[in-house]
Amino acid sequence: MQANMSTFIYYADIFGIIVFALSGALTAGRYRLDPFGVMVLAAVTAVGGGTIRDIILGIPVFWTIQSYYVGVIFFTSVFTILIIRKPKLVPKRFMLIADAFGLALFAVLGTQKALSHDFSMLTSIIMGAITGVAGGMIRDIICNQIPLILRQEIYATAALLGGGLFVLFSELNFSENSAMIIGMTGSLALRLVGIYWQVSLPAFKFDDELKG
Amino acid sequence: MQANMSTFIYYADIFGIIVFALSGALTAGRYRLDPFGVMVLAAVTAVGGGTIRDIILGIPVFWTIQSYYVGVIFFTSVFTILIIRKPKLVPKRFMLIADAFGLALFAVLGTQKALSHDFSMLTSIIMGAITGVAGGMIRDIICNQIPLILRQEIYATAALLGGGLFVLFSELNFSENSAMIIGMTGSLALRLVGIYWQVSLPAFKFDDELKG
Amino acid sequence: MQANMSTFIYYADIFGIIVFALSGALTAGRYRLDPFGVMVLAAVTAVGGGTIRDIILGIPVFWTIQSYYVGVIFFTSVFTILIIRKPKLVPKRFMLIADAFGLALFAVLGTQKALSHDFSMLTSIIMGAITGVAGGMIRDIICNQIPLILRQEIYATAALLGGGLFVLFSELNFSENSAMIIGMTGSLALRLVGIYWQVSLPAFKFDDELKG
Repeated sequence: MQANMSTFIYYADIFGIIVFALSGALTAGRYRLDPFGVMVLAAVTAVGGGTIRDIILGIPVFWTIQSYYVGVIFFTSVFTILIIRKPKLVPKRFMLIADAFGLALFAVLGTQKALSHDFSMLTSIIMGAITGVAGGMIRDIICNQIPLILRQEIYATAALLGGGLFVLFSELNFSENSAMIIGMTGSLALRLVGIYWQVSLPAFKFDDELKG
Repeated sequence: MQANMSTFIYYADIFGIIVFALSGALTAGRYRLDPFGVMVLAAVTAVGGGTIRDIILGIPVFWTIQSYYVGVIFFTSVFTILIIRKPKLVPKRFMLIADAFGLALFAVLGTQKALSHDFSMLTSIIMGAITGVAGGMIRDIICNQIPLILRQEIYATAALLGGGLFVLFSELNFSENSAMIIGMTGSLALRLVGIYWQVSLPAFKFDDELKG
Repeated sequence: MQANMSTFIYYADIFGIIVFALSGALTAGRYRLDPFGVMVLAAVTAVGGGTIRDIILGIPVFWTIQSYYVGVIFFTSVFTILIIRKPKLVPKRFMLIADAFGLALFAVLGTQKALSHDFSMLTSIIMGAITGVAGGMIRDIICNQIPLILRQEIYATAALLGGGLFVLFSELNFSENSAMIIGMTGSLALRLVGIYWQVSLPAFKFDDELKG
């Protein structure tokens, strides 16, 4: 069971990296970037969140010591450039659901990594959310957009829920595997609710400031 | 006296965090962000500078080990969303002066922290300025604006002056408390001069490049 | 010979910092920044890449322990503000070639630094590219532009080639000096080809997404 869970996490992690890299590469296509630009956006989207997490935690940045991440991003970028020339070929619904899966996974894994380095529960949950959302934020900042996730249906909230459930059920003495599955399921479920019912948290705005 | 100064710094620091978080949350209101976006902008503005300082210095990032910062930012954001729906309710003059106070404090505390980790005086003054201004810069970059402080009346200059005075009077064997008070007072005074007389350093521009 | 190479690298490094700082300061002139803004853009362009490299590698950030970098950036900024008021006075061709030289140098030195801290060859080549291109990327992001190098003629590709050649010829048991010269020459040559023939890698775009 332990081995099965490790294997599951290993492949799920690679799947998440591919989905996030694909999202970055497809974004690059909207801005007429050259192939190197495609790879930079794919890499930033896929590993940007984990990089910031590791830097803030003061631990070795994961992809500098596990080179297969670079390989996965490289092949995803090349694949996107060569094969998927039209984003219509990637169904939007598939991308949204796959992205929700990657978000749930990264939020829980990021929380777990911070906890395993003895950070507090609160800090660890925040680190999980950073792992899940910061890559997409940097992608949008590079492309000169206000990050979508700051406006979008229950995105970061789902990441915080995933990390929070993981911490809660770990504290309740559930096994780590069970707590992970509960955290990921909860995060995924909340995000899918946001996608299907287009639920957003109410936006915060000032009417008299919109000209500013 | 020592205890009084520590207590003063503790509460002044929290006040500075609240002011910077408020500034980030109010900015979020101009861009129709959702509540999570408000919190991200508040957090980035309030602790972004200190986070970059600690990362560059290679020391533990302060808010990962002192959780009350997250609490202060959370409650400031919720308070802003629920109560202060119109920025007119926060007088602009109050925000400017409170922000000047936070800037002076963070510049001096950032300089002191770098010095206490044995960095050079020059590096420490720069770290103080980064502590004071980087959070606001990231806030503006996320909101797709050229950072205001790169154009504004004597902003970063005031931060550099605060750190510089602190270093100078420490070298002259003043007590640390005295050097802090002198640094903060000098920084605050220069910034207030900039605000009240709208003094700016002359802008540097190329006439023949403005179309570029 | 070893001493000569060290001396060459020392002065070449300062020349590279000056060129990158000049590029940042000239960019600032297009956006009516104040003198402090000029220095920030100059600093970010000149040392931003190396700063990110050192942070990701978890080693001391180079300019915090070698203060002359700050001095070089300061004097380059002041010089630019006082003397070079019109960018026409800096021939565009000179800037492009000087920048290509800085890129080649930083790519190889960044690769070497990562290797000397026992990172893998792949990670080290990426670190070299980050050293060469990240500063210019941050400069463009601050100025609210999509980074030029993500679209430009063979820019980052030249950085990757420089690091790659250095690694390859080091592996082939060439002396470190020889491997450096080969790496720099290869990178410089490829970049100059890109400049003179205006060779770009074919852009990756989606026709049906351009309105998005």
